[in-house]
Amino acid sequence: MRMYDIIAKKKHGEVITDEEFDFFINGYIKDEIPEYQVSALLMAIYFQGLSRKETVALTHKIMHSGDVIDLSDIKGIKVDKHSSGGVGDTTTLILAPLVSSCGVPVAKMSGRGLGHTGGTLDKLEAIEGFNINLTIDEFVNQVNKNKVSVIGQTKNIAPADKKLYSLRDVTATVDNIGLIAASIMSKKLAAGSDKIVLDVKVGSGAFVKELDGAIQLATEMVNIGTDMGRETVAIITDMEQPLGYAIGNAIEVKEAIDILKNEGPADLRELCVTFASTMVHLGGGAPSYEAAETMVLENLSNGKALEKLIEFVGAQGGNETNITNPETLPSASIVKDIVADQSGYIKDIQSDDIGIAAMILGAGRETISDAIDMGAGIYFNKKIGDYINAGEVIGTIMTNKANKVDEAVATVLKAMTYTDVAVEKRQLIKAKVTKDGVLKY
Amino acid sequence: MRMYDIIAKKKHGEVITDEEFDFFINGYIKDEIPEYQVSALLMAIYFQGLSRKETVALTHKIMHSGDVIDLSDIKGIKVDKHSSGGVGDTTTLILAPLVSSCGVPVAKMSGRGLGHTGGTLDKLEAIEGFNINLTIDEFVNQVNKNKVSVIGQTKNIAPADKKLYSLRDVTATVDNIGLIAASIMSKKLAAGSDKIVLDVKVGSGAFVKELDGAIQLATEMVNIGTDMGRETVAIITDMEQPLGYAIGNAIEVKEAIDILKNEGPADLRELCVTFASTMVHLGGGAPSYEAAETMVLENLSNGKALEKLIEFVGAQGGNETNITNPETLPSASIVKDIVADQSGYIKDIQSDDIGIAAMILGAGRETISDAIDMGAGIYFNKKIGDYINAGEVIGTIMTNKANKVDEAVATVLKAMTYTDVAVEKRQLIKAKVTKDGVLKY
Repeated sequence: MRMYDIIAKKKHGEVITDEEFDFFINGYIKDEIPEYQVSALLMAIYFQGLSRKETVALTHKIMHSGDVIDLSDIKGIKVDKHSSGGVGDTTTLILAPLVSSCGVPVAKMSGRGLGHTGGTLDKLEAIEGFNINLTIDEFVNQVNKNKVSVIGQTKNIAPADKKLYSLRDVTATVDNIGLIAASIMSKKLAAGSDKIVLDVKVGSGAFVKELDGAIQLATEMVNIGTDMGRETVAIITDMEQPLGYAIGNAIEVKEAIDILKNEGPADLRELCVTFASTMVHLGGGAPSYEAAETMVLENLSNGKALEKLIEFVGAQGGNETNITNPETLPSASIVKDIVADQSGYIKDIQSDDIGIAAMILGAGRETISDAIDMGAGIYFNKKIGDYINAGEVIGTIMTNKANKVDEAVATVLKAMTYTDVAVEKRQLIKAKVTKDGVLKY
Repeated sequence: MRMYDIIAKKKHGEVITDEEFDFFINGYIKDEIPEYQVSALLMAIYFQGLSRKETVALTHKIMHSGDVIDLSDIKGIKVDKHSSGGVGDTTTLILAPLVSSCGVPVAKMSGRGLGHTGGTLDKLEAIEGFNINLTIDEFVNQVNKNKVSVIGQTKNIAPADKKLYSLRDVTATVDNIGLIAASIMSKKLAAGSDKIVLDVKVGSGAFVKELDGAIQLATEMVNIGTDMGRETVAIITDMEQPLGYAIGNAIEVKEAIDILKNEGPADLRELCVTFASTMVHLGGGAPSYEAAETMVLENLSNGKALEKLIEFVGAQGGNETNITNPETLPSASIVKDIVADQSGYIKDIQSDDIGIAAMILGAGRETISDAIDMGAGIYFNKKIGDYINAGEVIGTIMTNKANKVDEAVATVLKAMTYTDVAVEKRQLIKAKVTKDGVLKY
């Protein structure tokens, strides 16, 4: 078998076989196949696409390029959740205890990543003493005992994906639906859960800008999960503005606590209720989505979800006081209001720029070695469609870097566009994709 | 400027600018742009194509990646000729003295290459003492004095083409018309002649299999020459069977002498008369193609072309006796007839396989370090449409390798397909492409 022939086949629109994907991924991981052949194949895939069968085969090979976690010692149906990211996306801190409180086990491995604010692991580490470094055995025991644990991802999950992604990133071959789907699903499948719920973001702040594209990507991923025997549901959600009000680390933990207290921003609450209900239903905690939703709403109002968070934090060595009294979480020395410089209806918010402002303040890392300031961040409680008066306080910045205040405030103000005519509020949940098809809302 | 953006532009079907081609070729030559980005761009070019303007810009950058030969000290209009290769293609040995004998200067740089038989340089070296290593000054003086010289190409002609070709060869991106045209024309333009005549081969023994494809390639090359101010004419010729009868080195020199004696195979003669007439006309040796043809035919019959070959060989240190008495050229110790194993009309000849048989006998090199046996080769005087009786002698092999005789004979016999019904003879000259358009014959 020769890589040359695999490239030539795809170039001519022919189908790559399972054996050929195996040869390609194995050879690439071992550095036996040079990157210049891989990038030529990736570009040919961009133009010719991948069939459903090819996408599944590629995902399978990438998934098996490293460790495949075995969670079979955990009792019950394990449901994992993946989000394609976004600004102010605190959901794991909320969903893990909420779903667990409904009797469905949550065994989640999370990453750090280079976002505008840290990843889930960074946010958990805003809680004093929280230990994300459990062994797989400790992790399994923890879930069997408390029905919830969140730990750091092992380094050797889908190494072929890391290599491929780095290459795609510099060869303009990122934006192919099949390659994106294979990249996401290979990691989720290797992480060992039985079922998967995906949050596919759509809009100016997301990778996919249009609903049609998001539905295509969601369908590809649901197909992969289905064909590999892991039921997968994708929910397409709006990413035209930051989710919730908090953007940072400690501040997002506080917001998660608010939601679990049956308070907090409406959009973040709606998203968490939808995902938690889907996960509880898929995980066998309720006979229908509606029954699951009833249970989720109950556990938000009766305090059980919050209790579960406290128990979960304690079980992993975290300081429970940080949860029962969120004022004890890390804070910042400089707190300054953001004052609107214009009047009008908010027409548009460049979410990425708000995220960048938070990063400037110290909430995120630009390179993997940067330290995160857990107390830094932005509280921004305005949404598209709100009417703003010039001079009105529209948010607050928190930082320990006095010299970054003006830049961050200017960045937030510049991220907003106003108009004189009323603007419709955004609809958060846009569509649901299951193996049976697409349901648009 | 970033290579990433150039790849992304071409991927989306946008036009690459002159500055961007400059950045790409310069960076690639200096190893500042990695091969994985270049191969991604090449694959994007395969799918999106290159406009005429882009092809010219790319050719210009490849041409200027190394030495550009200045032939302005040679008096008169210099016309170069390029052939896309084929089996038994002895034409430079014939055209150089023939065109020169009509008063048009021929200043040709040739290569060795890895063909089935050697390149033009190898064939010239079958002549005892022939020196292909002149300096550019000696070369220019030689042409001014004798109106003809053929030397080895300098190593630094279009180095970007060598790098690009090696990469295309392993990434399935060879077969793009724009890239092929840029590759050929960049080298021809760097070699410094004023006008160019191209022999574009078409058929099973050539890179381009169909006339339409050959016309496209020819048109691209003519456009490049035109846009760069070097008049270019392309003639599309049949490559469904070996050209002439001789396949080897000394044996092809003998055949060249035959043609210059107004003898030799009809097909090789027709090709040489057509190309020589075109070159003489373009070089200002005659006011029309027809007048040039008259002059060419005259110089074949009156012995002037042969005289010019003897003078040319002598001027470059070659043994003139090899030309006046071709029996003194290198020969082989083993000479064996090829006897037909079937009867019928020849329907098809796999030219490449005949070439491979010659290589097996020692006439060509598989790797750059192999030595060539100047006396080895095949004399094969049958053409498509000829009727053959089983047991009839259809050719002769010449070699010094006793253990290769059977394999070579079997390879030749296997290369032929017979049929019971009469087969039309092949038409050699199929079309001519100039800046004014396409003329099909």
